[in-house]
Amino acid sequence: MSARVLVVDDILPNVKLLEAKLSSEYYDVLTATNGEEALEKAENESPDIILLDVMMPGMDGFEVCRRIKANPDIAHIPIVMVTALTDAEDKVRGLESGADDFLSKPINDTALMARVRSLVRLKMSLDEWRIRENTANQLGVVGEASNVMTEPVEGARVLVVEDKDFENKKVKETLAQDHDIVMSAESGAKAIELASAHDFDLMIVSLNLDEEDGLRLCSHLKSNEKTRGLPILMIGEIDDMSRIAHGLEIGAHDYILRPVDRNELIARVRTQIRRKRFQERLRSTYEISLSMALTDPLTGLYNRRYLEVHMQKLLQKNQTSKKSLGVLLIDIDHFKQVNDTHGHAVGDEVLKIFAERLTANLRSFDLVARIGGEEFIVILPDVSEQRAYMVAERLRCSISEVPVPCGVPEGTLNITTSVGGAIIDHGEHTTEEVMERADKCLYQAKEGGRNCTVFEGVGKLDPAQYKSEERQVIE
Amino acid sequence: MSARVLVVDDILPNVKLLEAKLSSEYYDVLTATNGEEALEKAENESPDIILLDVMMPGMDGFEVCRRIKANPDIAHIPIVMVTALTDAEDKVRGLESGADDFLSKPINDTALMARVRSLVRLKMSLDEWRIRENTANQLGVVGEASNVMTEPVEGARVLVVEDKDFENKKVKETLAQDHDIVMSAESGAKAIELASAHDFDLMIVSLNLDEEDGLRLCSHLKSNEKTRGLPILMIGEIDDMSRIAHGLEIGAHDYILRPVDRNELIARVRTQIRRKRFQERLRSTYEISLSMALTDPLTGLYNRRYLEVHMQKLLQKNQTSKKSLGVLLIDIDHFKQVNDTHGHAVGDEVLKIFAERLTANLRSFDLVARIGGEEFIVILPDVSEQRAYMVAERLRCSISEVPVPCGVPEGTLNITTSVGGAIIDHGEHTTEEVMERADKCLYQAKEGGRNCTVFEGVGKLDPAQYKSEERQVIE
Repeated sequence: MSARVLVVDDILPNVKLLEAKLSSEYYDVLTATNGEEALEKAENESPDIILLDVMMPGMDGFEVCRRIKANPDIAHIPIVMVTALTDAEDKVRGLESGADDFLSKPINDTALMARVRSLVRLKMSLDEWRIRENTANQLGVVGEASNVMTEPVEGARVLVVEDKDFENKKVKETLAQDHDIVMSAESGAKAIELASAHDFDLMIVSLNLDEEDGLRLCSHLKSNEKTRGLPILMIGEIDDMSRIAHGLEIGAHDYILRPVDRNELIARVRTQIRRKRFQERLRSTYEISLSMALTDPLTGLYNRRYLEVHMQKLLQKNQTSKKSLGVLLIDIDHFKQVNDTHGHAVGDEVLKIFAERLTANLRSFDLVARIGGEEFIVILPDVSEQRAYMVAERLRCSISEVPVPCGVPEGTLNITTSVGGAIIDHGEHTTEEVMERADKCLYQAKEGGRNCTVFEGVGKLDPAQYKSEERQVIE
Repeated sequence: MSARVLVVDDILPNVKLLEAKLSSEYYDVLTATNGEEALEKAENESPDIILLDVMMPGMDGFEVCRRIKANPDIAHIPIVMVTALTDAEDKVRGLESGADDFLSKPINDTALMARVRSLVRLKMSLDEWRIRENTANQLGVVGEASNVMTEPVEGARVLVVEDKDFENKKVKETLAQDHDIVMSAESGAKAIELASAHDFDLMIVSLNLDEEDGLRLCSHLKSNEKTRGLPILMIGEIDDMSRIAHGLEIGAHDYILRPVDRNELIARVRTQIRRKRFQERLRSTYEISLSMALTDPLTGLYNRRYLEVHMQKLLQKNQTSKKSLGVLLIDIDHFKQVNDTHGHAVGDEVLKIFAERLTANLRSFDLVARIGGEEFIVILPDVSEQRAYMVAERLRCSISEVPVPCGVPEGTLNITTSVGGAIIDHGEHTTEEVMERADKCLYQAKEGGRNCTVFEGVGKLDPAQYKSEERQVIE
């Protein structure tokens, strides 16, 4: 992919050299010759990646990097620090300030281009999710926009594939300080097996395995839908640069050169973990907005929309399976009085506890939804009439027998509920018909004095009888 | 990115040759030697791309392609047909059966690898959206899963950048049969300007422009956030193959070789339009699910969740702007009787029309939400008490003065509503406090005989007075 690259260096010939190299690869190049200009262009020109010199008069590269990473609007832009410094400490300082990589001058062109392509690709796949999060955010579906830099970087699960004992031990020991699980795999096949079975956050792969080609392993992981999303950090020799570049093309996220510096390893692993968690967060925003579309915000129960979609599916399934569905319409008695007398806040408390009691008294595969202000529906797959009636009575008693705690002077309110029930056989039925049938029984329950259950074709039953029957079934 | 490639050819040495080439580039390779096996592996092994021989005994490549593209679960997998056939007609037949490209044997390695990389990249960016659509689909938020092959391919907007008059005219004439707008730009700068200002579906770029480098134009378009998503079809000579490959790397989607065959052009353009529309459809699924999270399915009004988020924002804004908010709580009178007497279907009809009348009588920036079964809230930014009261009365009369048409024997029902209103000054307020205040007035309106408005600090006003006041304000 083409991309917009911001080149920052105080020495003009350096800028020109990088600009020429990148431009010949058809990148769009922006330039800046000091820290302030770099910040200004990062904020206003939407670069896809920044190549940042460290040693500049005034604001140096470390400070520019820190400021970019502290700004949630631009913190996601990848930064490669480019410098004459070769000290491991400087490198780690750069990585810790949020840079994605640290390349030493004179720049190896293969390494530079492979790195730019790889980081641009990662950014673009994140961009789609960031745009969506912004939309969700503006609509108020989710809270604050995420910033990659605020993600936790510890407590991850890491798998190491390195057959040199000394190196393996060193990597594992180093990472054990930060992370919860650091496992190793003795072969590519074992690594693939472990990666498919466990939920790792990062895989570290040596490109210098004796028995096999580490790149082949990377390729397998990246070709498999299950493991495609797992970030890979390669370990290689300086002479492996063209293979490392190939690894980045295949989809590995990062690499570290031998001899492995412990602090650099820690810093690079943190960057990967942070980015993975950021990506997961963006994705979960989507799931949250979906689940919000289908639930009632007050009680957390499913809403009418969910009910309508799923009732249809359940009725079809019932027809095929030749079983019966129980449908209960449940309406709180005199709920309007609760709201009118004690206010909506108290009414809401009652609804919440009501919903909790319903849920607590149902099986996990029963469906319960709030379909109106004080009206709920329960659908019981695969039940007899007797069983459905017993469930209805259990739900009714769970409300009436224990006063509902809420913010009234007395501390609790006595609440009762009426239930209308029907059994739907495996013939052809519409949602409307089913609702009408249950609704008629609910109406009779209300007319019959409330705090009772009326079942279609059975009428109002004697609770005493239900109790003895439940005992029979349980016994 | 690494990827899983399915190679299909009935001649084993051909399979082995392609397998070796792809494997040396670290692709995961699957193979099939006939149509049935190809279909089976396409369905069960999740390939990212299929290289498909045309001439096979039994089921030929055209038929395999058609069957894959007819199956919504796998229709999104890109297919490159590989064949000894060089007839333009066969090529078009392949493209029309849904293939993404058609390469002739002996295969040019540059062309093959560039094409595979490009198609794999496109597929992966779509995959994220497909997975999300599946989730939405399973939850019943959206209807049927989309299939790329069912997208319309006509009526698009195309921009052509070609400085050879004869060719330009030919391309435009050919595409004018299918498409609504076919414009041309005489230079890259003009093309960038047009592409930023208009919403094109496709851009066609010559790689043989006299005055400039067409690849540079592609790169600019792909580097700019606004035009990044615009598909590009390149036109080039057979000798341009390495530049074409570079163009695919930069992010162009497809190319066609000179002399341009009209039918091939039509087919390739259709493929691009179809894919772009598919992608747009997947994205809109997300927007739909978001809006569903915030609206009431029955009336289409905002729901309580939206209200709670936005009330907070409005109260803050009010504090800063030093203005006042009007808040009206509106409750349909005796709505329970409507449901009990006429059933929920009639009740729902009443709610819908009620919501429509509220919306019709408000300004576009007023907020109206359904916050309970028959309870609504209206928030009026920047109003005086007098104006808020007038709006309340207008809403109330819009309900009571015209009977509501619905499915009852009489054809209409007389419905009335009570309104409680309060003016919130620019001090500090909580949502709860505001709701409580309006709720108290609503309670008084109900106690005071219903079908009336009670305003905080004012009480029940005489509608006659309101009418004269409204006249004054209007006059």
